Amino acid sequence: MITLASDFGSPYPAAMKGVIAQRTDARLVDVAHDFPRQDVRTAAFWLREVLPYFPSAVHLVVVDPGVGTDRAALAIRAGDHALVGPDNGVLLPAARELASASDAADVAVFEVEYEDGETASTTFHGRDVFAPAAAEVHEAGVERFHERDGVVPAEGYEDLRFPEPEIEDGRAVGEVLVVDGFGNAVTNVPGEYLDGRESVRVDGESAPVERAYAAVDAGRRLVTVGSHGNVELAVNRGRGEAAFGVAVGDEVRLS
Amino acid sequence: MITLASDFGSPYPAAMKGVIAQRTDARLVDVAHDFPRQDVRTAAFWLREVLPYFPSAVHLVVVDPGVGTDRAALAIRAGDHALVGPDNGVLLPAARELASASDAADVAVFEVEYEDGETASTTFHGRDVFAPAAAEVHEAGVERFHERDGVVPAEGYEDLRFPEPEIEDGRAVGEVLVVDGFGNAVTNVPGEYLDGRESVRVDGESAPVERAYAAVDAGRRLVTVGSHGNVELAVNRGRGEAAFGVAVGDEVRLS
Amino acid sequence: MITLASDFGSPYPAAMKGVIAQRTDARLVDVAHDFPRQDVRTAAFWLREVLPYFPSAVHLVVVDPGVGTDRAALAIRAGDHALVGPDNGVLLPAARELASASDAADVAVFEVEYEDGETASTTFHGRDVFAPAAAEVHEAGVERFHERDGVVPAEGYEDLRFPEPEIEDGRAVGEVLVVDGFGNAVTNVPGEYLDGRESVRVDGESAPVERAYAAVDAGRRLVTVGSHGNVELAVNRGRGEAAFGVAVGDEVRLS
Repeated sequence: MITLASDFGSPYPAAMKGVIAQRTDARLVDVAHDFPRQDVRTAAFWLREVLPYFPSAVHLVVVDPGVGTDRAALAIRAGDHALVGPDNGVLLPAARELASASDAADVAVFEVEYEDGETASTTFHGRDVFAPAAAEVHEAGVERFHERDGVVPAEGYEDLRFPEPEIEDGRAVGEVLVVDGFGNAVTNVPGEYLDGRESVRVDGESAPVERAYAAVDAGRRLVTVGSHGNVELAVNRGRGEAAFGVAVGDEVRLS
Repeated sequence: MITLASDFGSPYPAAMKGVIAQRTDARLVDVAHDFPRQDVRTAAFWLREVLPYFPSAVHLVVVDPGVGTDRAALAIRAGDHALVGPDNGVLLPAARELASASDAADVAVFEVEYEDGETASTTFHGRDVFAPAAAEVHEAGVERFHERDGVVPAEGYEDLRFPEPEIEDGRAVGEVLVVDGFGNAVTNVPGEYLDGRESVRVDGESAPVERAYAAVDAGRRLVTVGSHGNVELAVNRGRGEAAFGVAVGDEVRLS
Repeated sequence: MITLASDFGSPYPAAMKGVIAQRTDARLVDVAHDFPRQDVRTAAFWLREVLPYFPSAVHLVVVDPGVGTDRAALAIRAGDHALVGPDNGVLLPAARELASASDAADVAVFEVEYEDGETASTTFHGRDVFAPAAAEVHEAGVERFHERDGVVPAEGYEDLRFPEPEIEDGRAVGEVLVVDGFGNAVTNVPGEYLDGRESVRVDGESAPVERAYAAVDAGRRLVTVGSHGNVELAVNRGRGEAAFGVAVGDEVRLS
């Protein structure tokens, strides 16, 4: 199985699928192609949340503002998964999560060599570099792909880590990591922070802690533990990010 | 085959696909993931229109404003199809249509037991309750899934029926059920109402009855029989809902 | 393999998939369903760019403003590919490209007979005419489908050709063919025009010629060779079409 994720919208992902289908009969599953354009951090967050639900697979990820520059192409082994994409950090949070779920010692990061302007366009590496690489990794297998010509251990690579919240004396200072399509503002504060609380002050204003959106009336604010296990600011049948007045990257104080 | 439909947008459906792929090699086909958020009625309409075109399959449907409350999880047998989703009516119109197309006596409604907060998050039952249930129904087979542990006949369930039009003396009083992406306003008045008419008055104003959008000039109004067999208010290369000044739920008077 | 492309948005493509799955186990791959509505030229452009990356396949294309009129349904053989869709030109640029990539002498255009209102609705030929035809072409095979009943050589058909640029004395007068989702304005001027140039005047104003978007600072204009091999007007992490003040169909003068 090869999963595909990008910020390409449409129809560019189809070219990647064609390129892969020329090289392997692997099953293709779309993760998302509407990640915010060139937003490496948001893509990295969602991949970390979603990829661990898949069985062993090769995950092709192309959110790549540096396409055509000298940033490397990476292939990472993480447990019984592999990830293929640009060297800008987008793969790392998911790779660590996949490795940890597999009890793998750690992620193993490799560089995939290519020639810009020769084997590849300078503007669409998803089609010309990463899709062929993902197909080759799939055909070689997660255990063996690093033995192929043109795959070498990465001497260094761009990492990306999400900020950690500060939690002390029952207070938490966290950050909004992403806002999902429903308008739920997902913070970096672990859900356990809400254990035993019936309400919490968010930036000074109180909101009820609930297990279900529908536990409050339509249009009312609530704080809950989202499906990713983090504290989430939400509105039943509405948009939490608007009601709480927060955006991605904003600090959030809970008490 | 398992089809997937939701109001999740992206990337949440991918988590459901991963969960299913862990449990079965069933082919996955997306019906839609952009149903209007938490709009049970619109989703129910489209599912009734689209699912009957599929061969025998398990249809996973998650439009679920009550996620995390005590609303049940259902699995319905309808002819040689099964439907899995929340107990809020969204499955029933399609289930009845599938049963009727199969000459099945009726739909058989079962409840799938789960523990909120134990086997499931309280905010993402699509991933934690319905996707695993759909995979299990698929593996057990449409004929046998009700014999599994944790599947019990539903003692009651939420139904959903679309309003019937009133047709008398050549006049019809109907309702706009949905507006599609082209702007076509789909009513509940059966297409036969237009038989033999060259024009019809819609809320008092005359519009031509045509078989094809392009039978009138670009930008002109027409009334036609849509692909669902119902009377549809349309504009050639434009938006019927705007030109006729109607929205979902509006009454429409034809004469 | 059957690929699907349309301007249907959602959920109409699912009905086509169901209809096909009733008739064949062929693998289904979406190319795009969000082509601009009823915009035959834009769809034709993208299909020409994307379809050549696929292995041998049947390509189902439904951008069809003339649905329900007497325009024909076509099935075209192009090398080891087939294309199925309406007779409005949308298939031809891709068909020629596929034939040329296969060293096929030329495209062979056939008409697929159907009865409006009998075997087909008048408003959704994607479901009732083209999807069944694509399944049948797939089952018969690209080499043999024209031998089937109801498939006859087309006596004539609508063609569509993109305008050619004028290039003389180092000046080029071209046209914006499409704007992609990133805002890149794709012209019809071949990329070779930029060979050896460090900058180019676009409608009189100078912009640097670069191989990568990120070669200029975020928000700055550049001219590059896009993944289709044509001159593209772009902005690093921004929208080229806005910065250059161009829209589809606009003339562009390079010097």
